[in-house]
Amino acid sequence: MTSKKRTLGLAVAQMGPVHLADDRLAAVRRMIELMRDAKSRGAEFVVFPELALTTFFPRYWMTEEQAQERFFEKTMPGPATQPLFDEARALGLGFYLGFAELTPQGRPFNTSIIVGPDGSILGKYRKIHLPGHSDHKPDAPFQHLEKKFFDVGDLGFRVFDTQGVRMGMCLCNDRRWPETYRVMALQSAEIVVLGYNTPSVNIHWNEPVHLRTTTHLLSLQASAYQNGIWVAAAAKCGAEDGFHMIGSSAIVAPTGEIVARSLTEEDEVIAVRADLSLGEFFREHVFNFAKHRRPEHYRLIVERTGAGEPIA
Amino acid sequence: MTSKKRTLGLAVAQMGPVHLADDRLAAVRRMIELMRDAKSRGAEFVVFPELALTTFFPRYWMTEEQAQERFFEKTMPGPATQPLFDEARALGLGFYLGFAELTPQGRPFNTSIIVGPDGSILGKYRKIHLPGHSDHKPDAPFQHLEKKFFDVGDLGFRVFDTQGVRMGMCLCNDRRWPETYRVMALQSAEIVVLGYNTPSVNIHWNEPVHLRTTTHLLSLQASAYQNGIWVAAAAKCGAEDGFHMIGSSAIVAPTGEIVARSLTEEDEVIAVRADLSLGEFFREHVFNFAKHRRPEHYRLIVERTGAGEPIA
Repeated sequence: MTSKKRTLGLAVAQMGPVHLADDRLAAVRRMIELMRDAKSRGAEFVVFPELALTTFFPRYWMTEEQAQERFFEKTMPGPATQPLFDEARALGLGFYLGFAELTPQGRPFNTSIIVGPDGSILGKYRKIHLPGHSDHKPDAPFQHLEKKFFDVGDLGFRVFDTQGVRMGMCLCNDRRWPETYRVMALQSAEIVVLGYNTPSVNIHWNEPVHLRTTTHLLSLQASAYQNGIWVAAAAKCGAEDGFHMIGSSAIVAPTGEIVARSLTEEDEVIAVRADLSLGEFFREHVFNFAKHRRPEHYRLIVERTGAGEPIA
Repeated sequence: MTSKKRTLGLAVAQMGPVHLADDRLAAVRRMIELMRDAKSRGAEFVVFPELALTTFFPRYWMTEEQAQERFFEKTMPGPATQPLFDEARALGLGFYLGFAELTPQGRPFNTSIIVGPDGSILGKYRKIHLPGHSDHKPDAPFQHLEKKFFDVGDLGFRVFDTQGVRMGMCLCNDRRWPETYRVMALQSAEIVVLGYNTPSVNIHWNEPVHLRTTTHLLSLQASAYQNGIWVAAAAKCGAEDGFHMIGSSAIVAPTGEIVARSLTEEDEVIAVRADLSLGEFFREHVFNFAKHRRPEHYRLIVERTGAGEPIA
């Protein structure tokens, strides 16, 4: 962190569909191609999607045991993912990866990791804001069973230092909650990375389809601005066995502006040279937390879970 | 709150410049005209700007006593503002008004009130996120002395019931802080109203001018979406004695979409019929706080003021 202008070559590796019939090795082969593409475009760090190795299986009704047997990783890296770690080390790239984790104690989490350019796992996150439901909804066009298949994350929102940058991470639905980013910004995060699988159709109400994309981008943009950080978000998108998910992977600057955005719903790399000093202006002035925040007036944020009556 | 489809005729009364030479009666006369315009367009509630009765005086270096003598209200309503209350009652309109308040104990606040259609003051707010500085910056093109002229608000972020709607309020810089809206949404706010005076130039760093408007709108939009609420924001704008402030008064739906926006930098009314049920979908599903929030992982938001080191 000694050079005058600190930058990070930051890439998002969006992935098109991973179908039920696709095995992990096929996914990893695609990810290795994306990594090489990113490297050729100046990337030093690559963001992969949530649950990148398999289809978005929470859309299917099955038992927990069936899900764990087929879709969860018992070790990371494991036999199928070791080539990804090897390639990253060969290229000198750090990366973020989302996958379903089954712990040695048998606990299931929707997990992501930050891996350093030497191939070592520097940090782990387990998804806290699990969307969807746990009951079977036979009349819905598909399920969204994250509350059935995953436990709520138990590691909090932490930050990790990699490649001279302080980085936080989250997963999918977490990106819509301002608390997510604020907790990491209060630990001096400079970049937050995340992956997502977002169905194009809301099974709960007749939500206009365009909102699925606009609210995704709005959440990234506001959180980047309001915390003076870079945000990089990687979709798994397109139609997995007919079930369509949004694309619009994006990299957002601390100004709140989208500076890179995917155009396809297939495997696609977007990349920027992220100027880390840009966020400093925001964190020194309008969002100088030490000068302007007033936590004595924020207590309800931790004292209440749901919405309630007015305070006296 | 018994009808099937609850709506509120919601208007924003943007104001053009109020110069140093303009007296309060001139401002109130303009506000009465705006109120009548709003009423003719179906409004039931009108949002006026921050510090609506005077010029944005924190741009000028002077003593606290000088500021208080010239720009602060000792009573509300007072002789100059009583006609505004009378007209609102005659029209059956509720309204929000921002003004500089000097309490009987001599404490200065940047204050707003919600007034019911019967002319009674239903709620008061004193600005918590005071921007700017308290020292003299003689080399700056103008000052931003809110930290000199105002005490930090002591009433918290409360909500008030008016005209069958639960309404919260804030002022200007508060709108950029996600904590502001969250505390009110946790009290079941359905609408948040606010006024602002936002200089077009950032005196602290060479911020691209367009960001002054985009970050304003981004903050409103994200907060409306992330809390499932309507947000209505009224500018005082244009050049007050040569010092220019942004316009772009806006009404934002719980979808995060701008549904009305001012076009001028003068006195201008924008109005919508706000469907209050729209926010319910968001508050029942993606932002069902009781189901999805995890305050045990948000504690840093109240335990820290400024940014610090990673948590263990």
